[in-house]
Amino acid sequence: MCRWLAYSGTPIPVEEVLFKPAYSLVLQSLHARSLLTTTNGDGFGMGWYGNAGSPRLYRSTNPAWNDRNLRELAAGVSSPLFFAHIRASTGTAIQETNTHPFRYGRWLWMHNGLIREFPRIKRELVSAVDDAYYPSIEGTTDSETMFFLALTFGLRDDPIAAVERMVGFVEDTGRRRDIEHPVQMTIATTDGTTIWAFRYSSEGDSRSLWFSTRMDALKALYPESAELASLSDETRVVVSEPLGDLPGAWNEAPESHVGIVQPGTDELRPFSPSASV
Amino acid sequence: MCRWLAYSGTPIPVEEVLFKPAYSLVLQSLHARSLLTTTNGDGFGMGWYGNAGSPRLYRSTNPAWNDRNLRELAAGVSSPLFFAHIRASTGTAIQETNTHPFRYGRWLWMHNGLIREFPRIKRELVSAVDDAYYPSIEGTTDSETMFFLALTFGLRDDPIAAVERMVGFVEDTGRRRDIEHPVQMTIATTDGTTIWAFRYSSEGDSRSLWFSTRMDALKALYPESAELASLSDETRVVVSEPLGDLPGAWNEAPESHVGIVQPGTDELRPFSPSASV
Amino acid sequence: MCRWLAYSGTPIPVEEVLFKPAYSLVLQSLHARSLLTTTNGDGFGMGWYGNAGSPRLYRSTNPAWNDRNLRELAAGVSSPLFFAHIRASTGTAIQETNTHPFRYGRWLWMHNGLIREFPRIKRELVSAVDDAYYPSIEGTTDSETMFFLALTFGLRDDPIAAVERMVGFVEDTGRRRDIEHPVQMTIATTDGTTIWAFRYSSEGDSRSLWFSTRMDALKALYPESAELASLSDETRVVVSEPLGDLPGAWNEAPESHVGIVQPGTDELRPFSPSASV
Amino acid sequence: MCRWLAYSGTPIPVEEVLFKPAYSLVLQSLHARSLLTTTNGDGFGMGWYGNAGSPRLYRSTNPAWNDRNLRELAAGVSSPLFFAHIRASTGTAIQETNTHPFRYGRWLWMHNGLIREFPRIKRELVSAVDDAYYPSIEGTTDSETMFFLALTFGLRDDPIAAVERMVGFVEDTGRRRDIEHPVQMTIATTDGTTIWAFRYSSEGDSRSLWFSTRMDALKALYPESAELASLSDETRVVVSEPLGDLPGAWNEAPESHVGIVQPGTDELRPFSPSASV
Repeated sequence: MCRWLAYSGTPIPVEEVLFKPAYSLVLQSLHARSLLTTTNGDGFGMGWYGNAGSPRLYRSTNPAWNDRNLRELAAGVSSPLFFAHIRASTGTAIQETNTHPFRYGRWLWMHNGLIREFPRIKRELVSAVDDAYYPSIEGTTDSETMFFLALTFGLRDDPIAAVERMVGFVEDTGRRRDIEHPVQMTIATTDGTTIWAFRYSSEGDSRSLWFSTRMDALKALYPESAELASLSDETRVVVSEPLGDLPGAWNEAPESHVGIVQPGTDELRPFSPSASV
Repeated sequence: MCRWLAYSGTPIPVEEVLFKPAYSLVLQSLHARSLLTTTNGDGFGMGWYGNAGSPRLYRSTNPAWNDRNLRELAAGVSSPLFFAHIRASTGTAIQETNTHPFRYGRWLWMHNGLIREFPRIKRELVSAVDDAYYPSIEGTTDSETMFFLALTFGLRDDPIAAVERMVGFVEDTGRRRDIEHPVQMTIATTDGTTIWAFRYSSEGDSRSLWFSTRMDALKALYPESAELASLSDETRVVVSEPLGDLPGAWNEAPESHVGIVQPGTDELRPFSPSASV
Repeated sequence: MCRWLAYSGTPIPVEEVLFKPAYSLVLQSLHARSLLTTTNGDGFGMGWYGNAGSPRLYRSTNPAWNDRNLRELAAGVSSPLFFAHIRASTGTAIQETNTHPFRYGRWLWMHNGLIREFPRIKRELVSAVDDAYYPSIEGTTDSETMFFLALTFGLRDDPIAAVERMVGFVEDTGRRRDIEHPVQMTIATTDGTTIWAFRYSSEGDSRSLWFSTRMDALKALYPESAELASLSDETRVVVSEPLGDLPGAWNEAPESHVGIVQPGTDELRPFSPSASV
Repeated sequence: MCRWLAYSGTPIPVEEVLFKPAYSLVLQSLHARSLLTTTNGDGFGMGWYGNAGSPRLYRSTNPAWNDRNLRELAAGVSSPLFFAHIRASTGTAIQETNTHPFRYGRWLWMHNGLIREFPRIKRELVSAVDDAYYPSIEGTTDSETMFFLALTFGLRDDPIAAVERMVGFVEDTGRRRDIEHPVQMTIATTDGTTIWAFRYSSEGDSRSLWFSTRMDALKALYPESAELASLSDETRVVVSEPLGDLPGAWNEAPESHVGIVQPGTDELRPFSPSASV
């Protein structure tokens, strides 16, 4: 099972979230159990936005805890919006091109979960990717295929509708091949401004997805925290699994929902796959 | 430009051919300019047959000259039939799954050359791979696609006809998309007993392919060589480029031909792509 | 904590011990909990003896479970005597030169444990390595330093005495610097014929060391096993931790002892560090 | 032979110097023959200074031209002072800890050249490293040993005097062992503010060292260049080998000299090793 984290808010060095144990009351709690001490050893990736243009990627097949370059980079890079992902392969090869996050233009995508019996339906799924996107497929995973299907179905114009169509298509394809519960997923995607975070599974028993509490509410809960005070009210962290136990800090997304972290008020909406055309 | 080598004959440690400068008069010459001192730094692979079953692979994205494990393995493995390949990428990612030789069951495949404008026609080519083989595609190269097309067209039953059909299909596909000279190749493939080595290009100006001289003839030329005496008359080396300058040791394959290294008398035949069906 | 395995006996493919779940009754039990499914992800190494000369090494900083080349090699290499080691670093860099087993000429060495506060006394320890061996030090670990100290103290002539002197020297050095329990170790070393396996710690609470039961006794216990029947009576496996639960298959070495696996009758002797000169 | 580059001046993305062919008239010329297209395939490193604290490192044993993370990083990192180095090993292992630049606190160090017969005198040289620095040695190269000797001899207080003592000490040690010309070097070191670049060899025939022309003079030469206009007058590039052929852009350092790139006026001074004490 993979784990992932998405950060949006006051620019901070990436290491504050990935490595440091004492940045702030909230973040202390966020990584009380560090993202990087699990045994997800099948590769690590991070993507971050800087001043302009496309996000940058650092992806490696080393276990994250052994990767010196990752520590250097996490200390040297500050960003207002970044993704990090640690991979536990569900069968596809351990190589950089299979490591999350995936990128297309300004977009990033990362996934925890799987398409069940992916090898049996990969061909049909990949066949549906639009010609415009097909040559950009670099790896061989179910997760990247979902990304390019979502792009095909309009991710850049209407992300939620596109992911609903993508999931509907994968489920239809799988069920035609007698795969009982084709999709299990939490997914985060971003255009560099807004983060969409999805929780869904065909069986209605999805992997977990957590949003940090609104920063103004947290500041009210912990008025003595200088670190919290340094973070903007817009700052938000989304994670595949809760990273700490600070009372009031984390809120689990309900089944079949999508959270939208954006300038202004964030939102939580129901999510349901579209029937394929 | 990649380089490759195929060996069949008296079992010898792989290092004799890959690394050692003084094994024998012939082999001295074969690697007077060592296979491994070029600047082909985009990965290395070897495949070898042992006592039984499928061939074994060692593939790495390290430059061959830096890879300590390769030196250890080349010293520790003796084999009567092995392939070695050093890669110079023509654009696809540097990762083990893109490194030659490729394997399917008992078969190995390696390639020097390219399919021109491969990204433009990849989708059509991959679409033609039979369902039985499709899930075994692991990488993203033109070379591996050629292998799975050849398998689709009957490589395991009639290798020469299958490669002729594969090349014909790639050429037809390319030309329909206005690619002038779609195919440039030398290819070696084997089932563990016989080696087929092809030289062909759409433009009739193919990369080179060389066969070592029959061992009995070489022994007659160099009767004083104890090392030559230790090799069976069946021993043969096929290479993408001549590796030395021993007079009489190397014979260039003509354009559009395929050489067959097999138990008994080896053969050289014309090669011409089949029209697609 | 590292884990290691040493095999001596009827030549078998390395994969039978490292990967396969069903080779034989005994070996089934040996790896019921597979050597490779732990979370020791800081590198893997194996060393094996072939027909002649020095042992060969394969060492990698990939986690063992991700390393395709390891699976290939384990299937392709048969050996009558091999070592395998999975590393969990106690602080030194993750790089091939720090990966066990270490080799000098015909000798192999691997270690589970540590020299406590090694950085504080490394300089003194390395200073004691003989000039003849010093240039062969390639890495930076406590384990390799122990190897070269043992060589300095006569490993090649009298292995047990040399390891006793090495441990005595490390303990003296550590205690002069107020390190309470300087040494924690199980160590295996071999010259390609005999294996010496040590269990010792300064605090008298050593990591575990297990020897497989004599094969004739196991065959008597399990007369119906065809696989056991195929192994010579001399076949023996030594492991840092028990790998299965076949009743009667495993025997724990007592504290402060060394086991000798050799042609003829194996031995178990008390081990005690020598006072430094 | 290694190659290296040191940049100080207007903060620019590292890729402008390492990868881009058209940043400016001067930089065009600087990398007309790109730093990264040589066959130095034994590892790559860069070190850069950001807003505060120690420099960050990215070091890899991949060939630079294959390293996707390097391209990402070079695009994502802007810095007013950075070092880059491509390694061609003179014998020591290919591993990250042997890759330049080396770091200690705020200091970076990189080297082109070698200590001749280093294995013969390594022990004596390392023995002279101060206890305060010894535990920070991570690798096994001559270059890193020179760095820690220079630190021992006072690099942080008086860099030129310290390097003169270091070279004097290495030469004395080498000559006592009958090594004719112990030292061959160009070296760059920095504290994050000033760069010291040394050119020296025992034989008086040193590898080359080049300084870019003062930016105000270049602007006068090429008044039409908008790119030049965007660079501060303090901007300076130091390289081991000339990277282009823009007339007037490059100035070779004379034998046995050290150049000082610093706030205010840069300097060039004679360099001569000190006799050891």
